[in-house]
Amino acid sequence: MSFEITILGSSAAVPVKGRHMTSQHVRIGNQQFLIDCGEATQHQLINLGISLHKIEHIFISHLHGDHFFGLPGLLSTMNMQRRTDPLYIHGPRGLDEVLLANFKHTKTDLSFKVFLYDNPTMFPEVIYENEKLTVETIPLTHRVPCTGFLFREKQKQYRIIPEKLPSGLPFEAFRALKRGEDIDFQGEQIFYKNVTLPPRKSRSYAFCSDTKYSKSVISKVYGVDLLYHESTFMHRHLDRANTTFHTTAHQAGTVAKEAKVGELLIGHFSARYGDLNNLLEEAREEFPNTELAKEGKQFTILERE
Amino acid sequence: MSFEITILGSSAAVPVKGRHMTSQHVRIGNQQFLIDCGEATQHQLINLGISLHKIEHIFISHLHGDHFFGLPGLLSTMNMQRRTDPLYIHGPRGLDEVLLANFKHTKTDLSFKVFLYDNPTMFPEVIYENEKLTVETIPLTHRVPCTGFLFREKQKQYRIIPEKLPSGLPFEAFRALKRGEDIDFQGEQIFYKNVTLPPRKSRSYAFCSDTKYSKSVISKVYGVDLLYHESTFMHRHLDRANTTFHTTAHQAGTVAKEAKVGELLIGHFSARYGDLNNLLEEAREEFPNTELAKEGKQFTILERE
Repeated sequence: MSFEITILGSSAAVPVKGRHMTSQHVRIGNQQFLIDCGEATQHQLINLGISLHKIEHIFISHLHGDHFFGLPGLLSTMNMQRRTDPLYIHGPRGLDEVLLANFKHTKTDLSFKVFLYDNPTMFPEVIYENEKLTVETIPLTHRVPCTGFLFREKQKQYRIIPEKLPSGLPFEAFRALKRGEDIDFQGEQIFYKNVTLPPRKSRSYAFCSDTKYSKSVISKVYGVDLLYHESTFMHRHLDRANTTFHTTAHQAGTVAKEAKVGELLIGHFSARYGDLNNLLEEAREEFPNTELAKEGKQFTILERE
Repeated sequence: MSFEITILGSSAAVPVKGRHMTSQHVRIGNQQFLIDCGEATQHQLINLGISLHKIEHIFISHLHGDHFFGLPGLLSTMNMQRRTDPLYIHGPRGLDEVLLANFKHTKTDLSFKVFLYDNPTMFPEVIYENEKLTVETIPLTHRVPCTGFLFREKQKQYRIIPEKLPSGLPFEAFRALKRGEDIDFQGEQIFYKNVTLPPRKSRSYAFCSDTKYSKSVISKVYGVDLLYHESTFMHRHLDRANTTFHTTAHQAGTVAKEAKVGELLIGHFSARYGDLNNLLEEAREEFPNTELAKEGKQFTILERE
C-alpha cells in the first residue's frame, strides 16, 4: 500500500517567489487527504497534476490565513467541476462561520455535501478512522487553537504463505490465520505461525505546524516513521520564535532526536531566509536524517518488515 | 504620465495550469490600483515584482470567488509586512461581512486602516476622484450585482511653450495660461493660444467583467482608448454564455466595434479552451485591434496629441 506525502507549500505567513503557503497532500493506499490549505493550494494541486476530486478528507490545523485561505477557492472549484462525493473537513471551531460568509455572498449552493467537524484541541483524539488507518490530533502550542495530525496505520495482519496451505481452505479460515489464530481443517490443526509471515510494521506520519517548541510533542510523535515539524526560524532568532509561538530548526531537530523518529521534514520557513540550506544544516546538527519540505517534493514511507 | 495595465489573471471561474483568476494592476502616474483580486493575486504580484504596498485602491467587480478570494490573503500579507498607509476598497455590499468573518477567527488586528465602500450598481457613478482622474462604475449584467470600472483622466491643461513666455512671469499667471486663460503682464496682454499647445487627450480605460452581452455597455465605454471586456466563451457556446450571464468573443468584438474604442483586450477565458487563439480570431473578425489579456502582459496607453 502506498503512503506518500507531497509538499504543496513550505512558506510561513506570506508567499515568497517560488514558495507557497502550507499545504500537503497525503495518499495512503487509494485514499487521499489534504492537510492545511493555504491560498493557492488548488493552483499547486493543478500544477502537480493531482486531482482535486479524489480528496476525501481535509484537515486544517488552525485558523491563520496561511493555513486555510485556499479553502473557499478549492471548494468553489470542486463545485464548478460538479463534484458529487461528500467532503469531510476537520478544522478548528469557527471555520464553518468563515466558509458560510464566503458562500452566502457568492450565492454558491454546493453540488456536494460538506461535513465539518471541530477539532478537539485539549487532548489527542482520533478524529478519523477506517479499516486500516487512524488520524489523531496532536495538541500544539500556538497563538490560536492549533492541532497537528498523526496518521497511523492500524496493526496489520499476518501474511499468508500460499504454498504452505492445504487446498480447499475456506475463506473464513484464511481470515482467521491472517488475524493470527490457529484453525482446524479436515481434522488437523493448522498453526498460524507455520503458514504465515509476521505482519508488516504499521507506518506513521506526524504533521506538526504551527507550534512553539514543546516537550509534550515528543511523546505524541514518538517513534513515527516520518515527522513534519515546523521550523520557521534559525535558532539565532529564538526570541522571535518564542514571541510568535514558532520553532527553530535546532529545536525541530531536537524533537526528532528525542522522539526517535525515522526521518524529519522541516518546513514553514520564514520569508526572511533566502537560502534554506542554513535551516537544514542547523536541524541536521541535531538530527542528521532531515530534509527540507520543498514545493513539489514527494516523500514515501516504504513498507517494512 | 504613465498609464499601464498589467494582467495578473485571465482565467474564468477556476484556475488552469498557467492561467490565474481575474486581477489587474493599474498604474496611472504615481498611483497604483488593483481591479479584482482572485485567489493567488498576491502570488502574481510577487512573481511580477509589483509591490503590494503601493496599491492605494482596490476595486472589486462582484462577489464571485474568482474575483475576490485573494483579498483576505493580500490584506494579511500587507499586515504581516506592517503596512501603515490606509487602503481603500470599493466592492459590492457584503464584502465587509466576508472580510470580517475571515479576520475575526484569524484574530488579525490590521496594522493599517481599511476603508470599505459599497459600489453603486444601478447607474454609473464616480466612486473615486483625484486632481487628474476619475473612476466611475459601469453597471453590468451578471448573476449577482456586478460593476465594471471606467478610469478616465480629467480634462488636461494647456501645455506652456517656455520660450514664448517673457521672463519673470508669476506662478499664478502660469497656472491661468495652463487653464486656457489670457493674462495681463506688465501692461501687455498674453493670449494663451499664442504661448501654449493644446492639452493632450485625456486617456481612458474600461474594465468590463463579468457580464452578459449588453448593448447598454456600448454607450458607457464609448470611445475609450482601451477596453477590457470579458470573453468567456466562443460564440458556438452562446447558449452557455446566455445561461451563465457571460459574453462570447464575437460579442466582445461587437461591443468594441460599436463603441469605437481604440483597442480591445479580451479575457476571463473558460477553462474548456486550451488554445486561446481561437477566441482571439473570433473577436478580431469584429474588431481587428484586439489582444489577449494574458498573465504578465502589460498594456500601455500612450499620451496622444
